[in-house]
Amino acid sequence: MRWPKGLEGLCYGGDYNPEQWPEKVWEEDVALMRQAGVNLVSVGVFSWARLEPAEGVHDFGWLDRVLDLLHEGGVRVNLATPTASPPPWFSLAHPDALAVAADGTRLTHGSRDTYCVAAPPYREASVRIARALAERYAGHPALAMWHVHNEYGTRCHCDHAAAAFRTWLRGRHGTLEALNDAWTTAFWSQHYSAWEQVMPPRATQYLPNPAQVLDFRRFLSDEMLAHFREQKAVLRELTPDVPVTTNFVFGDWVPVNQWDWAKEVDLVAIDHYPAENPPEETAFAADLARGWAGGRPWLLMEQAVVTYTGPRMAAKRPGEIARLSLSHIARGSRGAMFFQWRASRGGSELWHGGMVPHAGPDSRIFREIRDLGGLLPALAEACEAPVEATAAILWDPEAGWALQAPGLPSTEIGYLEAVRQAHRVLYRHGVTADFVHPSADLSAYELVIVPSLYLISDDAADGLRRYAETGGTLLVSFLSGVADEHARIRLGGYPGALRDLLGVRVEEFHPIGSPVTLDTGESASVWTEHVHLAGARALARYPDGTPAITRSGRVTYLSTRLSDEAYARLLGLGPVAPVELVRRGEWLFAVNHGDREREIPGNLLLPPGGYAVAKVPPA
Amino acid sequence: MRWPKGLEGLCYGGDYNPEQWPEKVWEEDVALMRQAGVNLVSVGVFSWARLEPAEGVHDFGWLDRVLDLLHEGGVRVNLATPTASPPPWFSLAHPDALAVAADGTRLTHGSRDTYCVAAPPYREASVRIARALAERYAGHPALAMWHVHNEYGTRCHCDHAAAAFRTWLRGRHGTLEALNDAWTTAFWSQHYSAWEQVMPPRATQYLPNPAQVLDFRRFLSDEMLAHFREQKAVLRELTPDVPVTTNFVFGDWVPVNQWDWAKEVDLVAIDHYPAENPPEETAFAADLARGWAGGRPWLLMEQAVVTYTGPRMAAKRPGEIARLSLSHIARGSRGAMFFQWRASRGGSELWHGGMVPHAGPDSRIFREIRDLGGLLPALAEACEAPVEATAAILWDPEAGWALQAPGLPSTEIGYLEAVRQAHRVLYRHGVTADFVHPSADLSAYELVIVPSLYLISDDAADGLRRYAETGGTLLVSFLSGVADEHARIRLGGYPGALRDLLGVRVEEFHPIGSPVTLDTGESASVWTEHVHLAGARALARYPDGTPAITRSGRVTYLSTRLSDEAYARLLGLGPVAPVELVRRGEWLFAVNHGDREREIPGNLLLPPGGYAVAKVPPA
Amino acid sequence: MRWPKGLEGLCYGGDYNPEQWPEKVWEEDVALMRQAGVNLVSVGVFSWARLEPAEGVHDFGWLDRVLDLLHEGGVRVNLATPTASPPPWFSLAHPDALAVAADGTRLTHGSRDTYCVAAPPYREASVRIARALAERYAGHPALAMWHVHNEYGTRCHCDHAAAAFRTWLRGRHGTLEALNDAWTTAFWSQHYSAWEQVMPPRATQYLPNPAQVLDFRRFLSDEMLAHFREQKAVLRELTPDVPVTTNFVFGDWVPVNQWDWAKEVDLVAIDHYPAENPPEETAFAADLARGWAGGRPWLLMEQAVVTYTGPRMAAKRPGEIARLSLSHIARGSRGAMFFQWRASRGGSELWHGGMVPHAGPDSRIFREIRDLGGLLPALAEACEAPVEATAAILWDPEAGWALQAPGLPSTEIGYLEAVRQAHRVLYRHGVTADFVHPSADLSAYELVIVPSLYLISDDAADGLRRYAETGGTLLVSFLSGVADEHARIRLGGYPGALRDLLGVRVEEFHPIGSPVTLDTGESASVWTEHVHLAGARALARYPDGTPAITRSGRVTYLSTRLSDEAYARLLGLGPVAPVELVRRGEWLFAVNHGDREREIPGNLLLPPGGYAVAKVPPA
Repeated sequence: MRWPKGLEGLCYGGDYNPEQWPEKVWEEDVALMRQAGVNLVSVGVFSWARLEPAEGVHDFGWLDRVLDLLHEGGVRVNLATPTASPPPWFSLAHPDALAVAADGTRLTHGSRDTYCVAAPPYREASVRIARALAERYAGHPALAMWHVHNEYGTRCHCDHAAAAFRTWLRGRHGTLEALNDAWTTAFWSQHYSAWEQVMPPRATQYLPNPAQVLDFRRFLSDEMLAHFREQKAVLRELTPDVPVTTNFVFGDWVPVNQWDWAKEVDLVAIDHYPAENPPEETAFAADLARGWAGGRPWLLMEQAVVTYTGPRMAAKRPGEIARLSLSHIARGSRGAMFFQWRASRGGSELWHGGMVPHAGPDSRIFREIRDLGGLLPALAEACEAPVEATAAILWDPEAGWALQAPGLPSTEIGYLEAVRQAHRVLYRHGVTADFVHPSADLSAYELVIVPSLYLISDDAADGLRRYAETGGTLLVSFLSGVADEHARIRLGGYPGALRDLLGVRVEEFHPIGSPVTLDTGESASVWTEHVHLAGARALARYPDGTPAITRSGRVTYLSTRLSDEAYARLLGLGPVAPVELVRRGEWLFAVNHGDREREIPGNLLLPPGGYAVAKVPPA
Repeated sequence: MRWPKGLEGLCYGGDYNPEQWPEKVWEEDVALMRQAGVNLVSVGVFSWARLEPAEGVHDFGWLDRVLDLLHEGGVRVNLATPTASPPPWFSLAHPDALAVAADGTRLTHGSRDTYCVAAPPYREASVRIARALAERYAGHPALAMWHVHNEYGTRCHCDHAAAAFRTWLRGRHGTLEALNDAWTTAFWSQHYSAWEQVMPPRATQYLPNPAQVLDFRRFLSDEMLAHFREQKAVLRELTPDVPVTTNFVFGDWVPVNQWDWAKEVDLVAIDHYPAENPPEETAFAADLARGWAGGRPWLLMEQAVVTYTGPRMAAKRPGEIARLSLSHIARGSRGAMFFQWRASRGGSELWHGGMVPHAGPDSRIFREIRDLGGLLPALAEACEAPVEATAAILWDPEAGWALQAPGLPSTEIGYLEAVRQAHRVLYRHGVTADFVHPSADLSAYELVIVPSLYLISDDAADGLRRYAETGGTLLVSFLSGVADEHARIRLGGYPGALRDLLGVRVEEFHPIGSPVTLDTGESASVWTEHVHLAGARALARYPDGTPAITRSGRVTYLSTRLSDEAYARLLGLGPVAPVELVRRGEWLFAVNHGDREREIPGNLLLPPGGYAVAKVPPA
Repeated sequence: MRWPKGLEGLCYGGDYNPEQWPEKVWEEDVALMRQAGVNLVSVGVFSWARLEPAEGVHDFGWLDRVLDLLHEGGVRVNLATPTASPPPWFSLAHPDALAVAADGTRLTHGSRDTYCVAAPPYREASVRIARALAERYAGHPALAMWHVHNEYGTRCHCDHAAAAFRTWLRGRHGTLEALNDAWTTAFWSQHYSAWEQVMPPRATQYLPNPAQVLDFRRFLSDEMLAHFREQKAVLRELTPDVPVTTNFVFGDWVPVNQWDWAKEVDLVAIDHYPAENPPEETAFAADLARGWAGGRPWLLMEQAVVTYTGPRMAAKRPGEIARLSLSHIARGSRGAMFFQWRASRGGSELWHGGMVPHAGPDSRIFREIRDLGGLLPALAEACEAPVEATAAILWDPEAGWALQAPGLPSTEIGYLEAVRQAHRVLYRHGVTADFVHPSADLSAYELVIVPSLYLISDDAADGLRRYAETGGTLLVSFLSGVADEHARIRLGGYPGALRDLLGVRVEEFHPIGSPVTLDTGESASVWTEHVHLAGARALARYPDGTPAITRSGRVTYLSTRLSDEAYARLLGLGPVAPVELVRRGEWLFAVNHGDREREIPGNLLLPPGGYAVAKVPPA
């Protein structure tokens, strides 16, 4: 996967939904886009009802006019297949294609994403509209990229989903006996004697089977990927030179296994809406995206001019749009795109914000959008060099899914929290990190962190062993390596997959409510363990004298949760970095998210809220 | 609508449910009613199962005896149609008339209100029982008023409701294209190409369409009103001289648009159950009722001898029953009624309390009831003069419904909270306020407050402009005038409908978590804005120097939430009033809710917890 | 019911689920059991899918081998009927036997207990598998006891449940009119005119009928008991000499009326998983079990080597397994059993812990298990004498169910909390208490406590009166005696059933949010009342001077909630006991749950965490 041809320079723009506006607004739109330096817009993401007003009847006239207008205005088009929101007529014609919740509730249209991705009528309709679009716009000069669907992430528990799940399970496990073994169905008399007895995890009396839930998460990711691949095949056939992508989402609900998806898209693209701490969350998301892209360029497909936190949605503060966009670009994004071009007047997301806000172009927001658009072309050169990272963090959505099971020893543990802490500590101390798959080659990194990687395969464990044997510095935190790929405990002492590597044998887990103090003075919270040394030495001990943090060679085991500060000390990191710095060859990207002037390498001064991209040779 | 003939003086009594008791208790009831001065009771509210024991079979014998007994005892009857609680046989005969929740759950009988108000079998059965009652009791000397149904407020999402919703939408929008435009269905591909695709807001994948939800709230109010009107037509036909009413409820869920309903009832009646601060909540409810009644008399149809707060239900404190009853009467109620006469021995509301409590008539509660009944006749004269109010607060349930949508910029804003604050501040400082519809004539008021009136029509905006032009004092608080009647944003800067009136242009919203301090020293919480002056001047500014409170002529804009004290200062109100005072011509109503003796106009001393109704000429 | 023959000495062991493991592990299991002194294991609790792989097809070969192996190893078998978890094939064959939630959601297999206990296909299948097991293993030398089902406690609201509920109601109420009267269906027009109108409490519009909900709880207990009795009848027929039991559970949801069940089991057995304060919760559970067993021996059938609190599951601290096991034995358990022998590798409860933990036998847990097994045989003699208790606490699950109704005067009251406080205070001050049914003979006790016994029958009230008349010391706390057995208020002043006994008449309830201080200086919280003295005198008064605690002779009424300390003072208890002491004839059981050395009677010193069973004549 290379950066797609035809998308030279940095992409700038957003979702453009002209169907929400009268045609007379379209010309103003294109004029304002030119003012703002917009060069790419995503069109048609939610246009199915307009494009196919009745089953098999297409209306492309309006879209022809939109694409022509954009082309005349010098704006290229990231053309969407609109399958994320089937029209109301589709629901009425195919009620069996509406999604069903775990409790059997059949959903209704009236929002978006009201379909079962495994329902044959939906799959057929998806390919049909994708084909019609490709036939119509193959060769249109504005067409730069295909944007299949939008933010894949739905669930369904209906009979279509059940049938597809069974097919998937046959592929994964081969035989029913293998499935019974992998799922430990001997527990609670769950043994399946025929495939049709196997169900998605639906409402049940008490705790579900964790291996069933985990396989259903895997299935959902793969089933959505199959839907993507069907559309991609049609688009490739009709427009072989146009790259195809879709946009990944973030959040506590990780819907897809991005490693598998990254192999199928021509360009990794993400939507990112930071909440509590936008600079840190931005770095986290951007580094993940770069990881999924295998270090190659990727694209920030959506961000907003407003910030959402749980209870509130507020306009971004002055300069924040540019700073966060630059942070993404510094970390590998080939541009900055927004949802959406023009803030909606009505509909569910009328408060979501837009590059042209409700107040219109005479507004701070639009002026910042315009200024940012003016700035980007100069950055293209700096973006040619790869991002330099010395540390790696292991990322595996499957391990995260397994750690969301009910019935774990603590409800206060979380995979995302563990991964975020590892990244946050490195970020705050100025260390750029890559995210890598557990089976990746780690030899290029000075430091590898394995945060709460509950599931671990034998191969991945071998990889970590090889990395350590060749002198790598490794930090493994609690709950890593405890289970196999079916979420079954590796027996004989925790963490079964890594005991010899770490030089410890953990006998018991003791999650805790109140923090305890280690003999080093550090505070330890949430989780403690009864650790036996088996080759390692203790770096810190619990109040009862048993080891809390151990080291064997350059391999450290952390059996509890530390504060960020203590975590940084354990890693031997330098002082907190006053500004965000990312190095790419001779280029240095610097963003000052704070409210004080700061000096950066090259004797440059960054004012509060300022940023710079400068050629500064490494010291 | 005038105060109904035949109900001279003040009404005193409550819901009387003799079917819960053996007949021998009935005679004691009437004797105790005479002791207590009871002159009106609501009978039959939940008697459907007794009155129509099988479909079309009626049993009126017991009710004949009850009405005769009451008549002999000098107690008049507010006779209910029992349609709020269909009997179990009705559910079995008409399962399609049971209500369905948004997730498709079909409800079952076993409580009350288990029907879909749009279901034809339920509508037919409602008219049938109303007709049978009217035929039976037309001319009965005890019959003083009809009490149709009880506390209208149910929801249903079934197919009957869907069909009726579509009919209603055709009436409101005319064409499907108009509906598509009003609902902004271009967003998320929700365009409807046939009426049968339009649904009530049922369980769906993600955010619903806010305009659809708003119209469904309007429809529910109108559909219940249609049910009311059908019964009223029958009652009017058979008993043309008997007034017809129903009882409105309070609470966060405002089920009906009281402005529309007030036109249809012969007498506005309310049920009121204050919780946290009974005196303030009572004044609020009573002033609202008077507003709905257009300043004419109305009736407190239900209150309780106990106070409910969320977690607790406790007997009212000594004297509290009388004080709150007097507060209602001072503010326009022509009496004080209770739920219910005799506390139930069993059933869902056995702890609800009664004028005759579980302890029996030898009880503080019954003695207070008796004393209050003895007091009321002397107050009738004072109740002839209208309540005098100098201030008005705009009230629009539709604006409140729109502000309950998900996806608004803050989950911490609320229409009721904004309206309650406006009223509470005036009440505490001794200013009696009317509630008026946004399109009402405001010229009679010295002060008009517009609290967070999110939806505003062009007409209402014109009315406010006229009021200001003629010298009125106006306070408008944040989020007012932002949207049109379809909850679509008025573009070009907030608040679209009122920018010129206020002399400001708001560019952005910034809801906040922690309060900030204005340059005046006041604390501002929950909500802030980026306000540009466009004719107004700043009265207070945010920490960043932008305006927070502005004034243009006598028109003030408040872009944040203030404390009650700061709100009062902004309005230039006098000191906190030590007692509740309401003036009606020469009569002064005074209630001392506090624990200290207070002097009131006329050199009268009110003891702690005391009250007075006295002829005191205005100072 | 006597202690079953063939189970001499103390039972030691746990649930043994060999079907989760390869056969080669079985031999290690038996060897380890011998090491650990295990003499009884519960086998087959969740083996239905293995025992009956298809409808009517049985596979006993593996179980034959297991039982033979155990028998050879000297381990007896508590053989389970596996009906708590029907196999997946059963759900597919009998979808109507899957449980339905109150909202109509039909549950699916994938957990355990996915059946409606009233469904005929499930009842037939239950008896069939029980009969097949009994036919196979009647006479097997390892068979020591039958363990029917597991932790009865499911609910269902389906049509089978509805039909069975109606049959049960006919038995309880006789006529429909009696049911209408008992349920006060005159309230809200709920009168039933035909049996088929009566439903389980399903999703409804608003508050349910509390008498209906209460009867449904009674029905559920009785329906599960009918299921138990059907199996018991088969087992008795085929193995007349083998005792039959099932295991009762604890927790806020009390699913069965243990008094009724205790009459049907040959041995009371409990599963106990303490959470926040294990020693106190253990004493509470053990004393309850002894109460249900009528003072005769009972058996702790399940405990865990881990402790669950809401958010956490942690290995028990050193020595805790033995201390809590001894506390159970001291209070009447004839042994200590665990769930489960070997911690599961997968499945829903893989973190539940086991006598052989994930870490294997080389572990602190297994060493403690082995040591405890070595200790028990020496205790058998001390367990022959009955437990001596001087106080009794009334226990009635039906009163607790009634106090879980919505619509009570306070959401902060709870039956379990009231009972637990009574027991906790006695426990802390070294008083061993029995739990007794309200209608029990109380004459043997020095002190009887009646905590919040909302429902009380006339007979039970008479029993309390007789107890008081013969000089017994009685403490009755608020809400006791307020309602009759149909949860209908006893009128004329609270507490209707006990006014004369207590010498008070309560006029009103005043639940409170913030505590108040009594004139004695004690703090009173949650609940207060307006109490009139009618023969009693006030021991403490509320701030308004009305009585809060009263006494008449030796009968005390507590109308509020006190702190544990004040509660103990009111009972005149001695100082807090430093260790747990239970006397059984000449034997003294002592457990030191604290961290300081303590001296106990007999001049014995108990180290921190230590315990002793010693012949110490009463002082």
